[in-house]
Amino acid sequence: MIVDIINKKRLNQELSYKELDTFFNGYLEGTVTDYQAAALLMAICINGMTDEETFALTKIFIDSGDILDFDELGVLVDKHSTGGIGDKVTLVIAPIVAACSCPVIKMSGRGLGYTGGTIDKLESIPGFRVDLTDEEIYEQVKKIGLVITGQTKDLAPMDKAIYALRDVTGCVSSIPLIASSIMSKKIAGGADKILIDIKVGKGALLETEEEALKLSDLMIKIGKIYHREVRCKITNMNIPLGYAIGNSVEVKEAMDILQGKERDNYLVDLCYDLASEMVSMSKSISKEEATKLVKEAVDKGYAYQKFLELVKSQGGNIEKLPLSKKEQYIIAHKSGIITNIDALELGKLSVSLGAGRTSKDSKIDPKVGIKLHHLVGEEVSRGDTLATIYVKSKVKLPKSKDIFEIEKKSSLKKK
Amino acid sequence: MIVDIINKKRLNQELSYKELDTFFNGYLEGTVTDYQAAALLMAICINGMTDEETFALTKIFIDSGDILDFDELGVLVDKHSTGGIGDKVTLVIAPIVAACSCPVIKMSGRGLGYTGGTIDKLESIPGFRVDLTDEEIYEQVKKIGLVITGQTKDLAPMDKAIYALRDVTGCVSSIPLIASSIMSKKIAGGADKILIDIKVGKGALLETEEEALKLSDLMIKIGKIYHREVRCKITNMNIPLGYAIGNSVEVKEAMDILQGKERDNYLVDLCYDLASEMVSMSKSISKEEATKLVKEAVDKGYAYQKFLELVKSQGGNIEKLPLSKKEQYIIAHKSGIITNIDALELGKLSVSLGAGRTSKDSKIDPKVGIKLHHLVGEEVSRGDTLATIYVKSKVKLPKSKDIFEIEKKSSLKKK
Repeated sequence: MIVDIINKKRLNQELSYKELDTFFNGYLEGTVTDYQAAALLMAICINGMTDEETFALTKIFIDSGDILDFDELGVLVDKHSTGGIGDKVTLVIAPIVAACSCPVIKMSGRGLGYTGGTIDKLESIPGFRVDLTDEEIYEQVKKIGLVITGQTKDLAPMDKAIYALRDVTGCVSSIPLIASSIMSKKIAGGADKILIDIKVGKGALLETEEEALKLSDLMIKIGKIYHREVRCKITNMNIPLGYAIGNSVEVKEAMDILQGKERDNYLVDLCYDLASEMVSMSKSISKEEATKLVKEAVDKGYAYQKFLELVKSQGGNIEKLPLSKKEQYIIAHKSGIITNIDALELGKLSVSLGAGRTSKDSKIDPKVGIKLHHLVGEEVSRGDTLATIYVKSKVKLPKSKDIFEIEKKSSLKKK
Repeated sequence: MIVDIINKKRLNQELSYKELDTFFNGYLEGTVTDYQAAALLMAICINGMTDEETFALTKIFIDSGDILDFDELGVLVDKHSTGGIGDKVTLVIAPIVAACSCPVIKMSGRGLGYTGGTIDKLESIPGFRVDLTDEEIYEQVKKIGLVITGQTKDLAPMDKAIYALRDVTGCVSSIPLIASSIMSKKIAGGADKILIDIKVGKGALLETEEEALKLSDLMIKIGKIYHREVRCKITNMNIPLGYAIGNSVEVKEAMDILQGKERDNYLVDLCYDLASEMVSMSKSISKEEATKLVKEAVDKGYAYQKFLELVKSQGGNIEKLPLSKKEQYIIAHKSGIITNIDALELGKLSVSLGAGRTSKDSKIDPKVGIKLHHLVGEEVSRGDTLATIYVKSKVKLPKSKDIFEIEKKSSLKKK
């Protein structure tokens, strides 16, 4: 009986493969309700899962749908980020890697918690399709070497359903649930090698490096079972990634980076690093050689060109990227150096504007968002505009001091 | 934001009155979903609640509906049992106490977990109404001194909604949730004095005496806040209560006890004890005096008479009590003395027959159930019928040895 399975996990007992299979397949078939699934997920969040349970759940997710096979296309490297506030890394590196002649099939998700999803961001481009069929994916990769799309309907459909439910029930921060979700999608999606960017910090799914290491271990173990090379990078995410938070605003920032307009900030460095890692894995060359190719792809305009090909091929019209004309501003409450920007608070603000989801069926408003005018380390004067907020209708903004920590130059010297 | 509240409890942090109020009122109003409520309830089950949180939740439950006031009817004593497999105590003692001229207004619940609800049992009597209005309750008590009905629509409606959700999400065994649920109903229901029968054991909501003592403490504390005298009795529930488990079968057993046909078993003793306690509280007399009145009420037929008045007044036709004609049997697997009967297994069997709920909207089949032919301590021979199972259609029964522990007389002597 379903309630027995929930009770077992509530009492922190290990569930068998059969029990997990019965429960989660029941959920997919509709005999287990949303609220029963939410109860079990919360019990898993708090009491955890053993490795055996996590392997079982991953297998159940994979087996719930098709398993893709792109062997003819060569070595496919996929990249996943656990996401973070303002994380538009995929939008930047997928075109770069493809421009280095490494085929990229990127299946991305929707927003989870306070962090937006790549798919939501791409959908802010009018006409951009994120529901390509397996055939369309295949054809497009053969033609332009690059696809970014949502999970196809038949790929790990159970993970898709569970992912949406976790998002609205406070069940996001669970290491075994994150591991089985990511790995099932990547394995079913046909990736030969998998690079995972695990974000740590206030705006990310995981708050400590210790948790990130656990997640990394678990995913490498799962990879071994399925004979996939898995590399993990643990990256900082206490501050937002780049200037933009939202959907169309993030697409715009990605385009700026691809055109070489933004350089030498944390986000740009991270993008170059991850892109080089992927090219190194895909071509089996050294990271140094890969980095050269990546720089060239941006400098010579190949990467931006690839982005435009991608948008066109998936039906998007980049000229019509929407942005609300109603603006509000966050003004510096004092003069000094910005010592911290609270990514989590910005994430919450972004969701409250309509750029993220508050319930499973929420619609996202593509044209709202946040644009920072200054990053950590920059000097500002009282009264400067720190951020422009693109709103649908007037909202009550948080106070500058609740998001931006600013310290006087004199007090910083003393430290 | 609702998800923040769930996350806070997931991280085992204390929720404020305001946060609990926002969440639970949101649930009642429909802005918080079933699955979000299930997630929070599970987090509460595992991480617990502080006394302050429990007091807050009780107040929120009470304030969600009307608060009844029957002051004109004299001192009202209410009794609550945390329920158990085969628990038909209310059906027996309410008429006894009323027959002792102590007014009884009993608002009962539906089945929770593997334990049936008094209301479900009464509904097995064709025509019996369990949805009396406040006015009907008032009139009936003035006339016959006794009412057993479901919670009226406007009495702690939030508890009603949460109670149903807990039942199907494995969130039943939580001491703070049990305490706030019971006490909010009793306080809003206008009881002046409250007797609580806390069952402990394998078939009950709580498994250990330690938990029962915690629950008892908590309810007495809540009672003090609202100036209600609360007495708790902790009673054993490792074995089923009496012979019958189900709905109409339990009504039939209650009638037998009220007619004095069953005597000197654990259930009958318990009923007399609790009835005496209630009469003692209501009349402010000694327990000894009260016990005399109780015995007289049964022996002289007043109690059974009161039961018939109750059924008639609430529209029931006791002549038409249904019972399935399809019977199956559990047969003794060996000869000897019955040393244990697994109440929990019988509870599960009863639910699987259709006598209990498997989801929030399940319908109960009144005519199925279990009747034991032998209790613990009795001697049986291999091949004897231990239980008759009244079924809708043929089911696979558990094995005799999985429910009945039977030991040979010779091996018992050795011990």
